[in-house]
Amino acid sequence: MSEGLLIIISGPSGAGKGTVCKELISMKLPELELSVSATTRKPRMGEIEGISYFFKTKEEFVQMISQNDFIEYAQVYDNYYGTPRSYVQNKLDSGKDVILEIDIQGAMQVKKNNPEGIFVFIMPPSFEELKHRIITRGTETKEDILKRLHEAYREVCSSRNYDYIITNDDVRIAAEKVRSIIIAEKCKLQRTKIDYDSYKEE
Amino acid sequence: MSEGLLIIISGPSGAGKGTVCKELISMKLPELELSVSATTRKPRMGEIEGISYFFKTKEEFVQMISQNDFIEYAQVYDNYYGTPRSYVQNKLDSGKDVILEIDIQGAMQVKKNNPEGIFVFIMPPSFEELKHRIITRGTETKEDILKRLHEAYREVCSSRNYDYIITNDDVRIAAEKVRSIIIAEKCKLQRTKIDYDSYKEE
Repeated sequence: MSEGLLIIISGPSGAGKGTVCKELISMKLPELELSVSATTRKPRMGEIEGISYFFKTKEEFVQMISQNDFIEYAQVYDNYYGTPRSYVQNKLDSGKDVILEIDIQGAMQVKKNNPEGIFVFIMPPSFEELKHRIITRGTETKEDILKRLHEAYREVCSSRNYDYIITNDDVRIAAEKVRSIIIAEKCKLQRTKIDYDSYKEE
Repeated sequence: MSEGLLIIISGPSGAGKGTVCKELISMKLPELELSVSATTRKPRMGEIEGISYFFKTKEEFVQMISQNDFIEYAQVYDNYYGTPRSYVQNKLDSGKDVILEIDIQGAMQVKKNNPEGIFVFIMPPSFEELKHRIITRGTETKEDILKRLHEAYREVCSSRNYDYIITNDDVRIAAEKVRSIIIAEKCKLQRTKIDYDSYKEE
């Protein structure tokens, strides 16, 4: 069975990578699946083990780190989040294409060990729009917002490390572009297996 | 204005590259145009100068060759066919994406001088289907058919020089794949122009 594609969707906070991924998944491309992360945070109402997250204790998570069981992981305040290596590899081996929707630090960790991944950067449509999204997101102080904007600028610059850049002016169009990238990548010479001899006249 | 893409659609005789291109053009992608060839053959009923072909005398054509005015050209029996360089370059400069539907020898000529082109190989679905298409095409002798099949095998092998390979099982799906390749290529890092400084908080 042919191996699937590993597609990394990343971008600054506020660029809308989550909504682009949701839209993409709703297009029901055959074989495409969103990866499931592991976390040490407590399950919230309605969250299901193995679908929303793989819920782990801190001890389990730290042990997994020490066994190199994550493609990428991060600590956010008191909790760990990470992408389990075996889960993703099993999906790819069975021919599924796997989407990782992760932040930029995570994406750069993935790139180190999986350079064959397809790295897609979701760019906020403009600074003004990014500012608007970060501010209207809610409860942050002015200082936090400024910090986030500075961080977003640094993150926008890191798009130079990606294979593709999609400006998220319109979620539907942005998701269509990711879909096109997946279809195109599957047509690349190095991914097509042609049995040349079958075209030989005996 | 940003420069357009040069897309080369090629493949063995009988692979169906012409019908794939027609289907693609019918999808009305913005900015996408099929290139117009120059030829020394006489116009047929209904053919229009500059739309069907640029009709040239043999003298004009030979002079154009000597001035390096073709991206690629070939002599087929008594007539010349070629892709005029300035026509294609003007389209690209004005931001149009240009499709060249050409045979494999022509595509390899283009590759020498335009390595930035996007080279798409249309693969016949199978040897049996290719045979069927070549035979039902009509008026050829058994010997001609055998020669064509041998040629097709050699041509299938030359797909190793292309960027993308599309197996033409279904014209609609094949054309959709070319469309996806065009959309994806436009999202590639090296083709996107980001004004990083506009994301900088003053």
